[in-house]
Amino acid sequence: MTTKRLLASAIAMGSALAIAAPAMADDGLGNYRDRFEPLPHFPPIPAHNSLTPEKVELGKFLFFEPRISSSGVISCATCHNPALGWADRIPRATGHDGQIGERNTPTVLNSGFLGAQFWDGREPDLEGQALGPIEADVEMAMDLDSALERLTEFDLYQEKFARAYPDDESPINADNLAKALASFQRTLNTPNSPFDRYLRGDIDALNQQEKDGMVAFVDNGCIACHSGPALTDSNFHRIQVPGSTDVGRYEVTGNEADMYRFRTPTLRNVAVTYPYMNNGATETLEESVAIMGREMLGREFEEQTIADITAFLHTLTGEMPALEIPALP
Amino acid sequence: MTTKRLLASAIAMGSALAIAAPAMADDGLGNYRDRFEPLPHFPPIPAHNSLTPEKVELGKFLFFEPRISSSGVISCATCHNPALGWADRIPRATGHDGQIGERNTPTVLNSGFLGAQFWDGREPDLEGQALGPIEADVEMAMDLDSALERLTEFDLYQEKFARAYPDDESPINADNLAKALASFQRTLNTPNSPFDRYLRGDIDALNQQEKDGMVAFVDNGCIACHSGPALTDSNFHRIQVPGSTDVGRYEVTGNEADMYRFRTPTLRNVAVTYPYMNNGATETLEESVAIMGREMLGREFEEQTIADITAFLHTLTGEMPALEIPALP
Repeated sequence: MTTKRLLASAIAMGSALAIAAPAMADDGLGNYRDRFEPLPHFPPIPAHNSLTPEKVELGKFLFFEPRISSSGVISCATCHNPALGWADRIPRATGHDGQIGERNTPTVLNSGFLGAQFWDGREPDLEGQALGPIEADVEMAMDLDSALERLTEFDLYQEKFARAYPDDESPINADNLAKALASFQRTLNTPNSPFDRYLRGDIDALNQQEKDGMVAFVDNGCIACHSGPALTDSNFHRIQVPGSTDVGRYEVTGNEADMYRFRTPTLRNVAVTYPYMNNGATETLEESVAIMGREMLGREFEEQTIADITAFLHTLTGEMPALEIPALP
Repeated sequence: MTTKRLLASAIAMGSALAIAAPAMADDGLGNYRDRFEPLPHFPPIPAHNSLTPEKVELGKFLFFEPRISSSGVISCATCHNPALGWADRIPRATGHDGQIGERNTPTVLNSGFLGAQFWDGREPDLEGQALGPIEADVEMAMDLDSALERLTEFDLYQEKFARAYPDDESPINADNLAKALASFQRTLNTPNSPFDRYLRGDIDALNQQEKDGMVAFVDNGCIACHSGPALTDSNFHRIQVPGSTDVGRYEVTGNEADMYRFRTPTLRNVAVTYPYMNNGATETLEESVAIMGREMLGREFEEQTIADITAFLHTLTGEMPALEIPALP
C-alpha cells in the first residue's frame, strides 16, 4: 500500500471509529476509565508543518537513510529499529564507532503526542528533535551541511524534496529535512491497543487482572504523571534511578531546580520497549513498577500490585504501523 | 502476507510461469538469448536442509536480530540492508566499533544460486557462510556460544527453533542457526526482471539499446564468466582492480595459482548494488564495464559499447522480495 493510501485509510478509520463507537457496557469502572484517553490515530499536526503524503514518503526514505551518517551505515532506524519496537532494546544507545551514549533510546512510536522531546526535553517538538541525532558525535556524527550535500547528489532526493516542498527554490535544506522526518514520525502511531478498545467500550478487551492493574495505577497515583493519550504529562520530574548520575534537565536549563529532572516517558508500548529508565539499567516491567513506586510515590508496592500494574501495562501495546521498506537510491 | 503464504504463492507462480510462457516472437536474436537462463523463483535446495516455512520464518527473525552481535546493534540486515539492495552501498563493510573490513559487501539477493560464498569462496554454501559474519571481529564480533546463549534467553526463539527442528532435543545450536539463516536467504530472489521477461518471450521487455548491450556482452566474452541464471560461473579469476592489494583466494588455499583470484560476482541487480569490485572503489557501472574490459578481456571498450552494456545490466534488476519486518522478542 502506498503512503498516500495508508494515510487516507488511517484518517478514514479514525473518523469512522469516532462515529461508530458502540454504547458503553458497564463493568462498574467508569470512574476509572474517565481518567484516561484513547490514543487517536494521529497526533496534533503543527500549523507550520502540514502533514502531506509527499513529506511522509520523503521522511520515510530519510529515516532509513544511512548515508546521512559519517560512517555511512547508521540511520535513524538503527537505534529506532522497527523490529525492536522502534527503539533498540539495549541499555544505552550505541552509535558512531561503537560509542555508547548516556541515555536509553526512546521509541519514536507515538512521539508526536509528546509535548517535549528527548529525556531532558531540550527540544519542544519533532522538528526540533530530528536533526540532533544526525549531528551528535556519539550517534550519526555527521555534519549537517555534509548530510545535505550527500542528499543533493541523488536525483531521487532532488525529486522527492521538490515534490514535498513545491514552493521552495532550494528545497534540500535543514528545515525541510527536519520537517519530513517529523512528518514521517507523526504517522508512527499504535492505536487500537486492548486498552484503547476497552476505553472505547469493549469491556472484555481487558481481563480482570488487567482491570485491577488499571485501578491500582489510578489509586496509587501513577496517573498523576502518566496521563493523557500517550500516558505522559510531557513534564519534568525529579528522579535518580539506581546507577544513574545523569543530571537530566539541569543540563538544558542550568537551573538548580531542574537537577535530576527527566521528562515522563510515554507508557504506550512499554512492554516492547525495554529496558527502562533514563540509563536503561532496568530490564523488566516488574522492577520498573517497583522502582517507580519507591522513588516517585514513596511506597513499597505489594507483589500482587506489581503484577496487576504490569498486566495493565501490557494492554498498552497497540497495532504497529504498517511499513514497506523504502528502496533507497 | 505470512512467510508460508509467500512461499506457497511464489512456488505456484514459478510453476505457472513455466507452463504459461507464451510462444516466442522473433527479433532475430535467438542465438544470443540461448546463451542465457532466466532466474528461477528458487535456487537449488540442498538435501540436508529442506526449505520449510518454519525455518524461513526463524531465519528472518535471526537475520534482523542485533542481539547476536557483541554491541547489540549490528544484525545481518545492517550490512545486507533491504533498503539498499540487501547490501550497504559503501566501499567496504563497516562493522563492530566502526571498523572497516577489507572487502565490499556482496548482496544476499539470489545468493542461493552461487556455487561458492564470499569473495574468496572460502565457504561452499549459505550454511557455511551464515556464521562467519557473526564471529568476525570486524563485523558482529560475537562469540558463537554467546550468541546461542543469548537466543536461548528468549522464549520466542525457544519456540521457533523447536518448531523449525521438531526432531532435535536441543534445537538451539550452531548448525540450526546456520540452516535457518540459509533457508531465509534462499527466499531472497529477484525473478521477473525485464531481462527474464525478455528471455521468457516478451521481446519488447528490452529496448534496442539494451538488446545491443546483450549482444555486446556475448560478443565481447563477458559471458565467459558471467553465465548461468545468476550470471556468474561461481569460479575464481585473477584480477587486481585499481587500488586493491587483496590477494583473494590465495588467503584460503595458500596456493600461488590462486593469488589475486576472486569469485565472479553475480550481475543480478548489479544496478542497485553499487559500489563495485572487491574493494568497492568503483562507483559506476560505466567505470566497472571499462575496467572489466581492460583487466579481464584485454580491450578498451568504445564509449557506445560501455553505454550499451550498462543499459543491458540495468535490465537485470528484478522484483525485490516482499518483506514484513519481524517483531523481535
